[in-house]
Amino acid sequence: MFAIIVYDVGEKRVARVLKTCRKYLNWVQNSVLEGEITETNLKKLKAELNKIIEDDEDSVIFYTWRTQKYSDREIMGLEKGGQSLII
Amino acid sequence: MFAIIVYDVGEKRVARVLKTCRKYLNWVQNSVLEGEITETNLKKLKAELNKIIEDDEDSVIFYTWRTQKYSDREIMGLEKGGQSLII
Repeated sequence: MFAIIVYDVGEKRVARVLKTCRKYLNWVQNSVLEGEITETNLKKLKAELNKIIEDDEDSVIFYTWRTQKYSDREIMGLEKGGQSLII
Repeated sequence: MFAIIVYDVGEKRVARVLKTCRKYLNWVQNSVLEGEITETNLKKLKAELNKIIEDDEDSVIFYTWRTQKYSDREIMGLEKGGQSLII
């Protein structure tokens, strides 16, 4: 399936959340990742994130599509996720 | 069409970008909005955002789907966008 994950978590947990998500998905912007992921891996990712985040402070949204990717993705301004390839 | 917009912009421009996006879409998290939008309104929104953001510092991603919404949206932790109804 295709997934987009967006997180808004406390500063102390940002690095761990990003690192965990990047094991399964591609980083596209500051707090956004996307990519093809199997149902099994999505479950794994959710379980891992559940251990990291604080339920009363953080927020992580999982959008998933069973059949198709988006029909269009347009970036205005910088392609910030691209920096991940350089770092 | 259905759209998800994610922005990562300089602090000085955050309020204006959010206010502009909220004219057309629903706020779901810190820097994420989603909703049904017509092609015409999407063009308007892009034109308005183009005037606000700095191309060499900011990043706004527009995901659009012509036919279908996501098949699933799950929030882990807080539903931060809900606060917009209270403020």
